[in-house]
Amino acid sequence: MQPTVDSAPRLESTLREHLKNNNVPALQALLSAQAAPDIADLLDRLDDEERLTIFTYLPAPLAAQVLSEAGSETVRSLLAHLPPAKVGSLLDELAMDDVAHLLSDDVPQRAEQLLAYMTPEDAQEVRRLLRYPKESAGRLMTEKFVAVSPAMTAAQVIEHLRQVGRDAETLTAIYAVDENQRLQGVASLREIILAPPQQPLSEFMIQRVISVAPTDDREIVANLVSHYDFTVIPVVEDHRIIGIITVDDVLDVLVEENTEDQLRFSAVDPAEVSQPYFATNLLQVVRSRVGWLLLLFLAETTTGTVLRYFESELSRVVALSFFIPLLIGTGGNTGAQTVSTIIRGLALKEIRPRDTLRVISRELLSGLILGAAIGVIAFGRARLWGSDIQLSLVVGFTIVAIVTWANTIGSIIPLIAQRLKIDPALVSAPLITTLVDATGLVIYMLIAKALLPALQ
Amino acid sequence: MQPTVDSAPRLESTLREHLKNNNVPALQALLSAQAAPDIADLLDRLDDEERLTIFTYLPAPLAAQVLSEAGSETVRSLLAHLPPAKVGSLLDELAMDDVAHLLSDDVPQRAEQLLAYMTPEDAQEVRRLLRYPKESAGRLMTEKFVAVSPAMTAAQVIEHLRQVGRDAETLTAIYAVDENQRLQGVASLREIILAPPQQPLSEFMIQRVISVAPTDDREIVANLVSHYDFTVIPVVEDHRIIGIITVDDVLDVLVEENTEDQLRFSAVDPAEVSQPYFATNLLQVVRSRVGWLLLLFLAETTTGTVLRYFESELSRVVALSFFIPLLIGTGGNTGAQTVSTIIRGLALKEIRPRDTLRVISRELLSGLILGAAIGVIAFGRARLWGSDIQLSLVVGFTIVAIVTWANTIGSIIPLIAQRLKIDPALVSAPLITTLVDATGLVIYMLIAKALLPALQ
Repeated sequence: MQPTVDSAPRLESTLREHLKNNNVPALQALLSAQAAPDIADLLDRLDDEERLTIFTYLPAPLAAQVLSEAGSETVRSLLAHLPPAKVGSLLDELAMDDVAHLLSDDVPQRAEQLLAYMTPEDAQEVRRLLRYPKESAGRLMTEKFVAVSPAMTAAQVIEHLRQVGRDAETLTAIYAVDENQRLQGVASLREIILAPPQQPLSEFMIQRVISVAPTDDREIVANLVSHYDFTVIPVVEDHRIIGIITVDDVLDVLVEENTEDQLRFSAVDPAEVSQPYFATNLLQVVRSRVGWLLLLFLAETTTGTVLRYFESELSRVVALSFFIPLLIGTGGNTGAQTVSTIIRGLALKEIRPRDTLRVISRELLSGLILGAAIGVIAFGRARLWGSDIQLSLVVGFTIVAIVTWANTIGSIIPLIAQRLKIDPALVSAPLITTLVDATGLVIYMLIAKALLPALQ
Repeated sequence: MQPTVDSAPRLESTLREHLKNNNVPALQALLSAQAAPDIADLLDRLDDEERLTIFTYLPAPLAAQVLSEAGSETVRSLLAHLPPAKVGSLLDELAMDDVAHLLSDDVPQRAEQLLAYMTPEDAQEVRRLLRYPKESAGRLMTEKFVAVSPAMTAAQVIEHLRQVGRDAETLTAIYAVDENQRLQGVASLREIILAPPQQPLSEFMIQRVISVAPTDDREIVANLVSHYDFTVIPVVEDHRIIGIITVDDVLDVLVEENTEDQLRFSAVDPAEVSQPYFATNLLQVVRSRVGWLLLLFLAETTTGTVLRYFESELSRVVALSFFIPLLIGTGGNTGAQTVSTIIRGLALKEIRPRDTLRVISRELLSGLILGAAIGVIAFGRARLWGSDIQLSLVVGFTIVAIVTWANTIGSIIPLIAQRLKIDPALVSAPLITTLVDATGLVIYMLIAKALLPALQ
């Protein structure tokens, strides 16, 4: 009754033992009892040779499922060693959206070759899916849905399902279409079962069907499915239903989009590192980071300009420089906290465009409170270091000002991005930190010039 | 055919017009045509009075669904103004996991009072759910699943569903149990429809059912459901099935857990700000941030200690201080990039405990490459500012060293956290930045002492 994922290490060692003893029957029995995602995880952990041996012991339908669940590295190494004809027939067993994903992401150079070994109908469906842009609804859909005439009775629909249901991706939603495949309504299998057997579908189906276009971004699909608690959503083009997207694909999209957003938030370009950690080569890692790092470096050079401008102040009171990292570091931390709060509020649609002023004044106020709290401690710490009252006051007031300012910047920048129709998730913590650094130094030096007798 | 969420602003304005003209029939017709999540979103945007007026025009089942989908603020204001008896009967219409969530999160002080107005059976179910810890599987489950004897034939199961199906949360999975409610197997409605009518359930059901315990953390539930592409998972205690969890709740969990991780990554405590942005009061905002901010401030004071230690060097070469923010800022940005890459790799299980050394050497190497690239540019930038060759070399070499060091720290800290069984998601970007700041300054000053003739 326990989830098999918990026993993964045990599975791995038993398997290795059977492999060592060349105990093929035991190996096959063990593998057939596992779920495809678990075998896929296992293959991801093995080396090329073990992987291939085990894969060849899998019965065909299971092997196909394992292929669709395995990591890119595993897929690539398996496909490199299996005869193309065998791969073609494996791919025929899969949902075509999974084949499209596998061919375009894992083995793009071999896509055409492998398509030639699939049945012409399947290959054609994959080609149709691949015409849609990456990360679009079209790439996620399967054409294996069930569509019937709205005139059919509940009993007739059930009879129809008994004949065609095996080939469908899901029976959760049954679509009603006219003779031109134009979507007329939808009913869940549950409603069909519960309806009086002689009632026509048209009398109890839902007529206002919420759907997506094949070119819609996959994030729109994920938002709709999660907003309406769907388990499946139809893809519609010219009023005709051309496919469906199931909730398991939406779950994968959510996980992928979230890790992408997390990387972006740290100024890493997710496009370069879309493969698993070890499958990404060093060159891609460097490419994913160097662009933003360089841009931020150049932006950060303004801090040098600011400090050079105040060179005489810094040489007259060298102690001023001791507090530089502390002050701008605290500003940066505050800014990171705020920007992440705001991006989250925008993503969850808790903050709407007309709330801009309300958000900024709110963040300004909480910045003041936070700044005052940390400022008092900063004053005390500076005194403890033996700084005089004036310098300690400069440090305390600067904390108040910088924290308030960082909170304000951290809220304004993502709000501006949204107004400019730029995805606020592109605003990274390092970007805010860098902005706060240069401006924070100006604040620090101006407060110092105003309060320190030595600088007047 | 277009998703109604797109037309939200139009819905809002039409609705306000009907409200103004007091056109009740039009208002009711408009509302009945909307999906509950859309009305909930709308109510979240209205003020208390409009909200209450519109809510009272909703037919009872729709009103209940809207209540379960609305934000905390909306729920609180509605419940404060509706008679408790009316609220009790609304709650009876909901899934009891939604009621448990609503009572414990939105109106904890009024939970007991409202439970008294529900039917005793429903109230008892809610009380049972509330006994499980927050964020546990038990809080997400519903007891309204369908369980039958494994001896029943497919046709008998379908006949049974026709009688009891209306009250079930979902018919997607039908569970086979013995006379003591012990789970024997599971079959999907699809398999039951496709099976020969006279075949007993026991012959085609899946017997190794993957399940969760009611005390399991909700993240375990989310991982299993997404790993196995389930739409529903049973909750089992002492081998007996006590509830089911549906995929729509798992989607919500994923979204919540992701925003929590994102906040943690920016050193914000998500527990204090679990409400929507404007529903969180300023005190909670300050509490969610001040702890980490203070801790990081104290850690960051070590930068002052480092700089004071090198006071004589800084006063002899004031220009050294111009580069401080640039150098530690770049180190912080690199560290943030790395830590986010590693946390992601750990979360997706792409990096396993035994990979520690491989990860560190990999990050060290990519740090060296990145550092060399930025170092060359830093050298050039310092020369352009008129710094002499030696100082420019110090800046260039420091960049190489700091970037390499930041990459190493950014990978080591989350890996150590994982070894210590601390959630690596608790390692925030500000924590890494702060660590890199103090150590980066030591690196800078040591390189300066080694290379600058003025300091020898």
